[in-house]
Amino acid sequence: MSKSRTGSYDPRAFKGLTFHDATARFREGADTPRAYLERCLETIAEREPVVKAFAALNEASARAAADASAARWKGGRPLSAIDGMPVGIKDLLETKDMPTGMGCGAYRDNFPKRDNAAVWALRQAGAVILGKTVTAELGGAEPGPTRNPFDTTRTPGGSSSGSAAAVGARMLPATIGTQVGGSIIRPAGFCGNVALKPTQGAINRGERLATSMSTHGVHAGCIEDMWQVAIEIAERAGGDRGCPGLFGPRHPPAAHKPERLIVLETAGWEEVDAGSKEAFEKLLRDLEGKGVRLIRRASHPLVEKLETAIADAAAISSAITAWENRWWQRNLVDQSPDGVSARAKATLAKAEAMSLTDYRAALIEREAAQLSHARIAPLADAAITLACPGPAPPWSDAAADPRPTGDPVFNYPSSMLFAPVVTVPIMGVHGMPVGVQLMGQQHEDARVTAIGRWLLASVSPIVVE
Amino acid sequence: MSKSRTGSYDPRAFKGLTFHDATARFREGADTPRAYLERCLETIAEREPVVKAFAALNEASARAAADASAARWKGGRPLSAIDGMPVGIKDLLETKDMPTGMGCGAYRDNFPKRDNAAVWALRQAGAVILGKTVTAELGGAEPGPTRNPFDTTRTPGGSSSGSAAAVGARMLPATIGTQVGGSIIRPAGFCGNVALKPTQGAINRGERLATSMSTHGVHAGCIEDMWQVAIEIAERAGGDRGCPGLFGPRHPPAAHKPERLIVLETAGWEEVDAGSKEAFEKLLRDLEGKGVRLIRRASHPLVEKLETAIADAAAISSAITAWENRWWQRNLVDQSPDGVSARAKATLAKAEAMSLTDYRAALIEREAAQLSHARIAPLADAAITLACPGPAPPWSDAAADPRPTGDPVFNYPSSMLFAPVVTVPIMGVHGMPVGVQLMGQQHEDARVTAIGRWLLASVSPIVVE
Repeated sequence: MSKSRTGSYDPRAFKGLTFHDATARFREGADTPRAYLERCLETIAEREPVVKAFAALNEASARAAADASAARWKGGRPLSAIDGMPVGIKDLLETKDMPTGMGCGAYRDNFPKRDNAAVWALRQAGAVILGKTVTAELGGAEPGPTRNPFDTTRTPGGSSSGSAAAVGARMLPATIGTQVGGSIIRPAGFCGNVALKPTQGAINRGERLATSMSTHGVHAGCIEDMWQVAIEIAERAGGDRGCPGLFGPRHPPAAHKPERLIVLETAGWEEVDAGSKEAFEKLLRDLEGKGVRLIRRASHPLVEKLETAIADAAAISSAITAWENRWWQRNLVDQSPDGVSARAKATLAKAEAMSLTDYRAALIEREAAQLSHARIAPLADAAITLACPGPAPPWSDAAADPRPTGDPVFNYPSSMLFAPVVTVPIMGVHGMPVGVQLMGQQHEDARVTAIGRWLLASVSPIVVE
Repeated sequence: MSKSRTGSYDPRAFKGLTFHDATARFREGADTPRAYLERCLETIAEREPVVKAFAALNEASARAAADASAARWKGGRPLSAIDGMPVGIKDLLETKDMPTGMGCGAYRDNFPKRDNAAVWALRQAGAVILGKTVTAELGGAEPGPTRNPFDTTRTPGGSSSGSAAAVGARMLPATIGTQVGGSIIRPAGFCGNVALKPTQGAINRGERLATSMSTHGVHAGCIEDMWQVAIEIAERAGGDRGCPGLFGPRHPPAAHKPERLIVLETAGWEEVDAGSKEAFEKLLRDLEGKGVRLIRRASHPLVEKLETAIADAAAISSAITAWENRWWQRNLVDQSPDGVSARAKATLAKAEAMSLTDYRAALIEREAAQLSHARIAPLADAAITLACPGPAPPWSDAAADPRPTGDPVFNYPSSMLFAPVVTVPIMGVHGMPVGVQLMGQQHEDARVTAIGRWLLASVSPIVVE
């Protein structure tokens, strides 16, 4: 990692595109959803040729939807607080008016003309579905063309590459991403987004029931819009089948100052560069200065116990995911031998070497880690850790690069624990964003959002030049 | 319900088609999988014009697969104990070489050219995928054309209508069915099948992750083949994502005589006709005569507690399922307004009147019932009850008929409890089968299979003329 400043990001100056503060003007007639959309399209015209966040755009349909929304606001009858919000959808989710390419050659002509449950719910809420955002192949590690908006020589992260970059480039106020290992929080951390990876199952995945630890989540330019998008979806489409869905208020929860936070190192701490370590330690000192008590692994045996339980999160998560993807990826490779990357085929080969007993053993380790996490609930309001091991690494699509979209080492734990996470853009290191995430117990999505809101409002951004 | 004998079924005389006892001859060369298949095709030629169990047949592909299997048996290298077994697949599951019509006009041209996880596993095990079996529309209540093989004026039950009828007519030794409410066990009970509705998630549903209480299961002519098909699938494809998959031996578990059985009435007992009540009470007396202790609701307060918890199983299950199907069925109706029955649209309308809170309340009731069930595990080896409220009712496709494929009242409890059930064909009432089901605790699939095996081997079939 270069120590020198290469990117254009400064957390003190950067402000993501926001929507919640525009709607009062829609009501008054001083602004309209159509005008808001046109401003997004102008930014897209300017930034997209280099950032390449979109797999597809449907301007005509979006303009019609924005005009319909404008009429509703004018008539005082918006469908929701996000009526008229332009939204991008990760290209793993089906959309009835755009193809779903999954970043994969085998899906080049895939156009099922259906809406994913979350997309359906967004339309019900009046949101304007503007485009499909680039995903790494099949939600894995083989990158698409997207570049980091703060330094186009770097990756935006993945697999929700386009969702993170579109928000980071202020092309959209919010996008939908998905995470299995680290596919929402890592790119959000690399691109200066606020993002929610909710409790497992809290947002209905619709047809996209990929694996037992995959979730839909929200990337946004501000935490208010992040929450509003999530709750509007969940109120209409609920959670995954069998899950109670996202719990929380109908409007963004008020800022909440935590009394105590658990500082988690995870297996990732050793990989963090000096600048990011410096920034994070500075943030922790600032939190202590504001009276937040920090609990670290060295200071509490149950935190140490949890750190031990999640130390192998990458291996456990990868084994579970590989086994669960095995059957359909074999189908896909059989159907389209040339339509899938060598990287994806190598993952399939590893999965096909597993037995049901291997899978069951990994499930038991995951459940044991979840229990360790549940048992420490009384210790603190939430846990805090980095969203990524440092600024985004250089862009690469070399087959030999093991992690061209960055290392999800800080993200596997919350995915494996089914725990809600909010990442906040509060640190800049060498001109690039490095996200900080807050993790709660299952179904505490609103609580971590409230703590994130406090953090953004009360703690000065940290800059390491 | 007619009290007179109309059907041709006698449980003392009827023997389903078996496969496990044919393989020794495959090995010796005295028989071949191809010859076995041709015998199935002869029966199909004879019975299918009236029974109408199949939505599609692929004889050419089946013959090629049977020949390949014959070569493996001849070479002493069968892929599994079911290598060469002709199997039918319920037409809700995708098959790469046949369309998947889902009993629904909207899916008339649906041919995704993929194999469902269970189908993929069956092929890996060498099974011969012969055809798609008729399903009631979308796995619901709108019937297909299939007739009961023992009385073609009656329904075979649903929604796994063709799977049950194909086995009942001895056209196939085994078929795959699916159950959400009562779609495996009820038709199996109406058609003289043995069948397994496994623990929730025990057999990988593949793309068919319909609802939180849907399962794949096996219809068969004998309990040995039933178990073997289930375990061969589970060993290769595992369970649903996040589930440990079917537990049990690699070959059919030995017969096990239960010491104690809980007799469950469920909400269905009041609806049972006099002949079926007489038959079931006779069976219970015979079990007591063999030293099995029966525990009824009047004799144990915890059984009464469970009966109370499952009394509303129909309403709770229907609410959960309706909500979970709501989003994709709305998509389907929007895409294909004329391709879906009025019955399915009425269910959708009910679902769309529900709120997320209604759904959450139903989930809580389901979990509470599961807890009641788990807590009585120490009382007995298993529970016993009817598989259906009597013989199959008359065939009907009248829109006004609320349950043209029969009443799942005896099936909702095990579905809601995520509990494994085996139904055994041990009673004949007025010339028609009436199944008896054994229900275990979650993951006790092998135990209920072992008890079912004992029942079939040790208790004389009950006949009420």
